[in-house]
Amino acid sequence: MTKDYYIYNTLTRNKELFKSVNPGMVGLYVCGPTVYGEPHLGHARPGITYDVLVRWLRYLGYKVRYVRNITDVGHLEHDADEGEDKITKKARLESLEPMEVAQTYTLAYHEAMRKLNVAPPSIEPRASGHIIEQIQLVQTILDKGFAYISNGSVYFDTQAYDAKFHYGLLSGRNLDDTRENTRELDGQSDKRSPFDFALWKKASPEHIMKWPSPWSEGFPGWHLECSAMSEKYLGEVFDIHGGGMDLCFPHHECELAQNTVSRGQGGVRYWMHNNMITINGQKMGKSLGNFITLNEFFTGSNPHLDQAYSPMTIRFFILQAHYRSTVDFSNDALKAAEKGLKRLLQAVRDVDAITFSSGEGVNAELKKDYDGVFDSLCDDLNTPVALSFIYDAVRLLNQAKDHQITLHSADRILLDELLRKIVPDVLGLVDESTESGSESIVGGLMDMILEIRKEAKAKKDWTTSDLIRDRLKDVGIQVKDTKDGVEWSR
Amino acid sequence: MTKDYYIYNTLTRNKELFKSVNPGMVGLYVCGPTVYGEPHLGHARPGITYDVLVRWLRYLGYKVRYVRNITDVGHLEHDADEGEDKITKKARLESLEPMEVAQTYTLAYHEAMRKLNVAPPSIEPRASGHIIEQIQLVQTILDKGFAYISNGSVYFDTQAYDAKFHYGLLSGRNLDDTRENTRELDGQSDKRSPFDFALWKKASPEHIMKWPSPWSEGFPGWHLECSAMSEKYLGEVFDIHGGGMDLCFPHHECELAQNTVSRGQGGVRYWMHNNMITINGQKMGKSLGNFITLNEFFTGSNPHLDQAYSPMTIRFFILQAHYRSTVDFSNDALKAAEKGLKRLLQAVRDVDAITFSSGEGVNAELKKDYDGVFDSLCDDLNTPVALSFIYDAVRLLNQAKDHQITLHSADRILLDELLRKIVPDVLGLVDESTESGSESIVGGLMDMILEIRKEAKAKKDWTTSDLIRDRLKDVGIQVKDTKDGVEWSR
Repeated sequence: MTKDYYIYNTLTRNKELFKSVNPGMVGLYVCGPTVYGEPHLGHARPGITYDVLVRWLRYLGYKVRYVRNITDVGHLEHDADEGEDKITKKARLESLEPMEVAQTYTLAYHEAMRKLNVAPPSIEPRASGHIIEQIQLVQTILDKGFAYISNGSVYFDTQAYDAKFHYGLLSGRNLDDTRENTRELDGQSDKRSPFDFALWKKASPEHIMKWPSPWSEGFPGWHLECSAMSEKYLGEVFDIHGGGMDLCFPHHECELAQNTVSRGQGGVRYWMHNNMITINGQKMGKSLGNFITLNEFFTGSNPHLDQAYSPMTIRFFILQAHYRSTVDFSNDALKAAEKGLKRLLQAVRDVDAITFSSGEGVNAELKKDYDGVFDSLCDDLNTPVALSFIYDAVRLLNQAKDHQITLHSADRILLDELLRKIVPDVLGLVDESTESGSESIVGGLMDMILEIRKEAKAKKDWTTSDLIRDRLKDVGIQVKDTKDGVEWSR
Repeated sequence: MTKDYYIYNTLTRNKELFKSVNPGMVGLYVCGPTVYGEPHLGHARPGITYDVLVRWLRYLGYKVRYVRNITDVGHLEHDADEGEDKITKKARLESLEPMEVAQTYTLAYHEAMRKLNVAPPSIEPRASGHIIEQIQLVQTILDKGFAYISNGSVYFDTQAYDAKFHYGLLSGRNLDDTRENTRELDGQSDKRSPFDFALWKKASPEHIMKWPSPWSEGFPGWHLECSAMSEKYLGEVFDIHGGGMDLCFPHHECELAQNTVSRGQGGVRYWMHNNMITINGQKMGKSLGNFITLNEFFTGSNPHLDQAYSPMTIRFFILQAHYRSTVDFSNDALKAAEKGLKRLLQAVRDVDAITFSSGEGVNAELKKDYDGVFDSLCDDLNTPVALSFIYDAVRLLNQAKDHQITLHSADRILLDELLRKIVPDVLGLVDESTESGSESIVGGLMDMILEIRKEAKAKKDWTTSDLIRDRLKDVGIQVKDTKDGVEWSR
């Protein structure tokens, strides 16, 4: 943790020096998927963004508790506030139990994240698994006078809240301005104001997912779960809350209001939002006919795609943009990313193929690239700039491979750190042609074995070198001595 | 569904013709893992057994809703009835949030099942996610007079139950007989009788996982979750309840008693129990020093194992025994299974290599094998007999390959059904040579490295042994010397 890490805080609209609540530990909450459909690009971007954040914080030495929820109930969108919860609707259409739908799409989401090399969170709480905590939170907000009961439902009173705090603080809105631009729908609502939002909804008789509560048999409002679960697993005050920019309003604004009422101001230190993705310059949406699932990317089975793009290509492509910029997906851009990734992964392998001269001198350009990578990651996780420095280091490595320049042992340490630590461990870019985890362990073990073999040969310890030769043959590994060193293959 | 499927019912101790409650649909509930430790053989057997059951029922044309729970709270074993819940204990020792422990081992379990080609269930409910349903069930049992409150905890009244129904019906016990063989522990319990079991436990102040209830802040008793969740997702009456034979008493007996009180008799149609596994003839247990995790089998990193055994070898080995027989694991038996599996998968590939003559004639032996496979699977899922018929078909296929006999197009249809449907789709035996390649190489390399380390130590060659220690640490492998030999883990 010698590096100062700066993070853009949506709440203050400033890049701030990151300071964790508890020294050496970070609590991170990220809004996870609503599991009522196939995972798509909109899931990949936050998945990858916060995965790199966690990997980076861990690289810096923090112990991170990463909580990412599964919304399996009560996702009321603003248009559907009066209506059914999305999952229940889908379940009834398919004649399925809602939890069976949730399981199907939770598994699909997990599988897609696994392919994208997005590590699972430390805790993955489900909204349906925290109804008691949500009921307790509604009660607290009622007790404090910022909610009211109407026809068995409970609504958050945005006017009462705005009179004391500021509803719109996070998203930069102003309740009075917003009100003038909104058409009031008389008689269609139990709400006092159109901005009020449901904390608890009374269920209609045909509603499947419902639980008993002091107010009605019903279900929690969507915004409630994240307030309840983040407090349960991270405490009243925690470090970072992340999510897509589309969640900033109303979801996070409502969450912030709930938090402020129940636990006071300043509960979340840094609010972090990743920007959206577009496809050929257009917003992606089912109604726009340009909706592409992640599996369709991986298999190429969508009319908008010229070919299949591997999960690692998608990951690399997303990291080529800063997380606060939009990303536009097109076949041309993806094909370019595919090539760039290939070149990078070749360089990762090539570190072993180069002869490093002895000596302590460090290549000045390489040192600049090395520092640039760390500086840009410390600068609000600027992955595109970090990648450009990595590519410059790759250029030097290729020059050394072609014997145009000479690199020394001290350079190898820098290259190893960039290509064998930052690239796979922080950026999560790994060779997916084989099973990634075991693959890199095989590489590490082989490095050691070849070193032992070299020393055994130098000491004329033929027992050991013969043992190594025979056993490698048994597991199907061939070793070849070349003038540049030792090569091995399976 | 032209085939009659017979299933052994633990409740009646008879093989019965299977008839589903709803035509064409099956509701199946299986007790899943308690997620406080690494997955081991005891998880593999029920995982694989009920996976084959589900695959077979689906093959027969049933739509199956398969519910398998995750016990992430309230697992009170009979000895620990007075004490802490296992997960909380582990969490505190590791200074972790209990749900972080649960997540770690849930992921490990899912990963092991994925490797064993065990398909995920339709719904995977968590005990911690169904506290409200469990509290409601406790209230129902109290209201009906079969439970009592004692010091904030609620206990099931086995004597009151036994007076009206029969406590011990499933496990074949008799409350009076059992009582005489049990030592009463005076003053140590809030319970009226030692057989009474907790429905709700009042939590001690230091207990982390607890929820509000009408009786105390506490947590549900272990037996409760399966009654509550099976009813929620499968209804009051459903088809099959499965689990390991070790769960028959007290867990399923208590579940049956709870069900009977709340929803009447006959709620579960068929109770199905898989038998236990042993290692070299001994029961497996941590205290016995012969505890082997699934990952240790997959990598060979346990002193009891001569080599790594692939997940598919473990699966095949388990299916070589009938699920109601014990299975004894030994290196010799596993090596034989590895060979047998290899031969079977070669045959699956060979179907394409054979020239089938035109003509409608069917080889009589092959037809007998074909019928034998279906008859044995219909006979309470007799996988070892089914496999023996499949091997006889493989023998015929190999004879045809060697031009000793001639097979015709009609034979190919039978072979395709057996080797390309039953083997992969029902038995779930597939070629894993690509997937687990790196895994087994890691195992082979580690065997060699540990041998070199042993010799280096014997020769007092500390340079080599230190190098090995440091480099293994770099690649994330821990080595531990135990009295039985050397263990390693990632």
